[in-house]
Amino acid sequence: MDIATVIGIVLGTVMIVGSIISGKGTIMAFYNTPSILLVIGGSFAALLISYPMSELSRVLSVTMKVFVNKQKDILAIINQLVSLSESARRDGLLALEGRIEEIDDPFLVMGIRMAVDGMSPEIVDAIMRTEMEAVETRHDVGKTFYESFAKSAPAFGMVGTLVGLVIMLGDMKPENIGPGMAVALLTTFYGAIAANFLLLPMADKLAYYNSRELLCMEIMVRGVIGIQTGENSRILKQKLMTFIPPKLRPEEEDQV
Amino acid sequence: MDIATVIGIVLGTVMIVGSIISGKGTIMAFYNTPSILLVIGGSFAALLISYPMSELSRVLSVTMKVFVNKQKDILAIINQLVSLSESARRDGLLALEGRIEEIDDPFLVMGIRMAVDGMSPEIVDAIMRTEMEAVETRHDVGKTFYESFAKSAPAFGMVGTLVGLVIMLGDMKPENIGPGMAVALLTTFYGAIAANFLLLPMADKLAYYNSRELLCMEIMVRGVIGIQTGENSRILKQKLMTFIPPKLRPEEEDQV
Amino acid sequence: MDIATVIGIVLGTVMIVGSIISGKGTIMAFYNTPSILLVIGGSFAALLISYPMSELSRVLSVTMKVFVNKQKDILAIINQLVSLSESARRDGLLALEGRIEEIDDPFLVMGIRMAVDGMSPEIVDAIMRTEMEAVETRHDVGKTFYESFAKSAPAFGMVGTLVGLVIMLGDMKPENIGPGMAVALLTTFYGAIAANFLLLPMADKLAYYNSRELLCMEIMVRGVIGIQTGENSRILKQKLMTFIPPKLRPEEEDQV
Amino acid sequence: MDIATVIGIVLGTVMIVGSIISGKGTIMAFYNTPSILLVIGGSFAALLISYPMSELSRVLSVTMKVFVNKQKDILAIINQLVSLSESARRDGLLALEGRIEEIDDPFLVMGIRMAVDGMSPEIVDAIMRTEMEAVETRHDVGKTFYESFAKSAPAFGMVGTLVGLVIMLGDMKPENIGPGMAVALLTTFYGAIAANFLLLPMADKLAYYNSRELLCMEIMVRGVIGIQTGENSRILKQKLMTFIPPKLRPEEEDQV
Amino acid sequence: MDIATVIGIVLGTVMIVGSIISGKGTIMAFYNTPSILLVIGGSFAALLISYPMSELSRVLSVTMKVFVNKQKDILAIINQLVSLSESARRDGLLALEGRIEEIDDPFLVMGIRMAVDGMSPEIVDAIMRTEMEAVETRHDVGKTFYESFAKSAPAFGMVGTLVGLVIMLGDMKPENIGPGMAVALLTTFYGAIAANFLLLPMADKLAYYNSRELLCMEIMVRGVIGIQTGENSRILKQKLMTFIPPKLRPEEEDQV
Repeated sequence: MDIATVIGIVLGTVMIVGSIISGKGTIMAFYNTPSILLVIGGSFAALLISYPMSELSRVLSVTMKVFVNKQKDILAIINQLVSLSESARRDGLLALEGRIEEIDDPFLVMGIRMAVDGMSPEIVDAIMRTEMEAVETRHDVGKTFYESFAKSAPAFGMVGTLVGLVIMLGDMKPENIGPGMAVALLTTFYGAIAANFLLLPMADKLAYYNSRELLCMEIMVRGVIGIQTGENSRILKQKLMTFIPPKLRPEEEDQV
Repeated sequence: MDIATVIGIVLGTVMIVGSIISGKGTIMAFYNTPSILLVIGGSFAALLISYPMSELSRVLSVTMKVFVNKQKDILAIINQLVSLSESARRDGLLALEGRIEEIDDPFLVMGIRMAVDGMSPEIVDAIMRTEMEAVETRHDVGKTFYESFAKSAPAFGMVGTLVGLVIMLGDMKPENIGPGMAVALLTTFYGAIAANFLLLPMADKLAYYNSRELLCMEIMVRGVIGIQTGENSRILKQKLMTFIPPKLRPEEEDQV
Repeated sequence: MDIATVIGIVLGTVMIVGSIISGKGTIMAFYNTPSILLVIGGSFAALLISYPMSELSRVLSVTMKVFVNKQKDILAIINQLVSLSESARRDGLLALEGRIEEIDDPFLVMGIRMAVDGMSPEIVDAIMRTEMEAVETRHDVGKTFYESFAKSAPAFGMVGTLVGLVIMLGDMKPENIGPGMAVALLTTFYGAIAANFLLLPMADKLAYYNSRELLCMEIMVRGVIGIQTGENSRILKQKLMTFIPPKLRPEEEDQV
Repeated sequence: MDIATVIGIVLGTVMIVGSIISGKGTIMAFYNTPSILLVIGGSFAALLISYPMSELSRVLSVTMKVFVNKQKDILAIINQLVSLSESARRDGLLALEGRIEEIDDPFLVMGIRMAVDGMSPEIVDAIMRTEMEAVETRHDVGKTFYESFAKSAPAFGMVGTLVGLVIMLGDMKPENIGPGMAVALLTTFYGAIAANFLLLPMADKLAYYNSRELLCMEIMVRGVIGIQTGENSRILKQKLMTFIPPKLRPEEEDQV
Repeated sequence: MDIATVIGIVLGTVMIVGSIISGKGTIMAFYNTPSILLVIGGSFAALLISYPMSELSRVLSVTMKVFVNKQKDILAIINQLVSLSESARRDGLLALEGRIEEIDDPFLVMGIRMAVDGMSPEIVDAIMRTEMEAVETRHDVGKTFYESFAKSAPAFGMVGTLVGLVIMLGDMKPENIGPGMAVALLTTFYGAIAANFLLLPMADKLAYYNSRELLCMEIMVRGVIGIQTGENSRILKQKLMTFIPPKLRPEEEDQV
């Protein structure tokens, strides 16, 4: 569970509700079913035109997977790679076969297995990087989806407000102008909240998780290639450690 | 037929019409022929200035071709390439000549024919990639066209609203202000809907189909080069499989 | 003459005038000399600050040259290059000297002359590409100019509207508000039309002509280098043909 | 302490307060606790959804470290590198071991230590550049954070204004319209000030400090590699000096 | 002196003043000291937060230097380089030592001096290009500064308008609404003029001068390297001439 997301949603809701109450408004005056339907449903309709079904169905899984995902421990990955490197230098690449089952990450498993199978480092590097690009593309779908959503929502908010204004202006009785405009503005209000409070931040967080997963994969690729080419384990460790902020590095790595 | 597009158009229309009806407006109050003509015709006039005739006539064909296009089956392409690779390794490159007629895709036909003709892999790669760039450029026309359209439509929507406002303000009778502004706002309404509900999403979907077609071509180029250079069929398959999301890979490819 | 541009300007004008008349406005109510002067003159003043005189004087020639320019026939260029390639392979590079006068394009003349002069392909490639970059830079001036113009015009439109509003608000008599605001809005109206109906589309078309001219030059560079390096004429033709959309290729090139 | 920041904050505050007073407004009319809470709290809530907790906690340290940071003296760095280069050329690379403790910068210490340890220049270069990228990424967090904040604040400002308008319009008494709108506009006012006066400028200054730190690191990398490869100390100095504006170079370096 | 800038400023001022007078407004109604102070002072305060003092002090010198700068004569530079090349081919690189004092440009002096000193072409190229990057970075400061200014000015214009509106709305007497809003709109007016008429165009012209200076430096680098590597003077001339538009080339260079 991503704590920050939960706190953010609760805090933002409290702020908005609080500003309504402190302004002596009622929550009910801010609730309007057709406006909500227009902003959400209209945006979703635009997204159906934007993306093929197969992509849309993937968005949900990417969203879930990424929001619940516990972050991988980069230090643990590096330690595992260094340990594998030591085995390989001591007992040869084939010795890694027996250690494959200790590895959790399927991407690292794939890399080590190719190394054990005797493929050349160039091919292993190429295959692993193609896989990385594919993962990046797949995860990008989520980010792009929420960004499109965040562009659509305020646009449909404006459409709804125009609908309200045209109706109100077409039959202008003094007593209707205020409430008519109030309702008309609600769709703009929904569009602004949906985009700025939920959709854009979700796109940002998906981008963050994506970049972090790619960082882990980058470390694994460099590690596997280092193992294959028989690089000195200490140098390999130092190279991989540069991916970690100095403060989080274990004590012996205190040069920077 | 692209189901998502159809559902999206129907759903969005329902949402907009629904919001008009639930607001106690009449559909007729939202219909205004000159406003529609100004938004569509004015934008189209701007597009005529933006693009030469030859490009515009291509937009229709790109649009149709891409919207009706059934998506190519990437897995089938990979399997065909692997099978061709096995033939070539067993019986030599010339043996592929007899298999050319089983291939549907003209781009792959071109590649295999060049390989059979004995051109060097560098030249085959160069020619196929130039073709890819040309396809990308041609398809891009559609996307760019709809994006220009989507920028023009709201601009002419605003022009129409300004026309309406200037007329209304120039002869301001209290009873005319409301209906005058209502009509003036309609062009903004049309521009907003055209851009956000139809044109931008169509540009997005064209971009998606374009990227997918290029992905298929990329796989074909790598496959043909792999066949020409006599790469091991199993390694070729593994390389090409990385372009497919893990879940969609056949069982034996379960490492990632 | 660029037909699409003419049709576009006529069509757009009809649409705007039509929307004024159908709204029961008079054309005269939309004509205001000081507003037009402010939008055009103000934007031009900003452009004088943006660009040095020498660049501005070039804009007119680029604009004219490009709008009247009849498009080069790419197929004819390729055929000429292939024919030159055949001469060179049959009779040697020096034989091309006698054929230079059949060539119209000064860029191609320059390339062939350098080849005949015995410069190395690397140098010919470098000189031709520097020339291409220079052409791109010079043509870019036109596009950039119209884009700057298109940004300035609505800005000065807004300045004019602010001027009108401040004057109107400073001396607010009920009977003046409507007409005052109507006149104030006219500069916004002019700015919007200038930018979206004329300037941005002109920038787009200049960009299109520029990209097309560069495509022709790219083909010439590749052709000249192919001729110099004695590439097989059939392969050269196939390479160059990939720059043409399949439908426009002559019959024998029907693979894709 | 960054003087310019302090002067900027004071000057801007004086300007805004001055414009209120000169307009015969009272400061109290511009203070509204719920509006401030909505703009700050709402934006912060959106940021919580955008970034994981671990990144947010780093923002504060980056902000502090960078704002208090006294700028490194580039000339001193170059002189130190040249002096180390002379030692290395005179007494060998190992002689640098004794001089490591005179070096303050941990990044330069790391580089020299690796050189002394006999790692190859390629590896030293790769490790130092990975470290640079990591520093760039870490510092970027601060800039990105303030940019997100600067986008959120006006958005929540608009949300607050919409809340105020809907409440005011829903219960429209003539005597309430003015004060109601005044309060509604305050959140837009807060959002505009927060974004344009504080957040965007802070993002800019963080970006400046980041680029300057990377410049120092670039000089160190080039210096260390020059030392390792035994480059002539005078040429090394000339190369490194190009990073300094001519006016700030010591007298002997007056060619440009 | 840059004539275009002066004419632009005069023309634009005439246009704006003319539109005020033709609208029967008075210039005094458009003059408001606190509004001007808020737009200029507030923007400047934001810039103080954005940039460190050392950068700000450089902006003035870059601005002056560039606006008064007489443009370098590219043809003269090329002729000088070709003449130096002929000397070097005839009498050897060392012969250039005697000609250094005829050279005005310190960047070219630096390059020739390094060539005479016998540095390798790779090192000369690297040092000259580092210098070019440094010049680009320094000049960029000016452009970036004016662009930041141009973003700040309208933002503070809006802040000022909000201040005016809140004050006016908080104490709404019918006779005050018009003049109150007129004054409130003045800051928006100032912000729009400052950004679109002065600051953005100045940023554009600085960018132009920067790109032109870099073009001259590019020609010098290529010339010096050509001289060092003993390239044929005629070919060197032809290469360098491609940087000049065909119409401006001397007669003998009429191929393109």
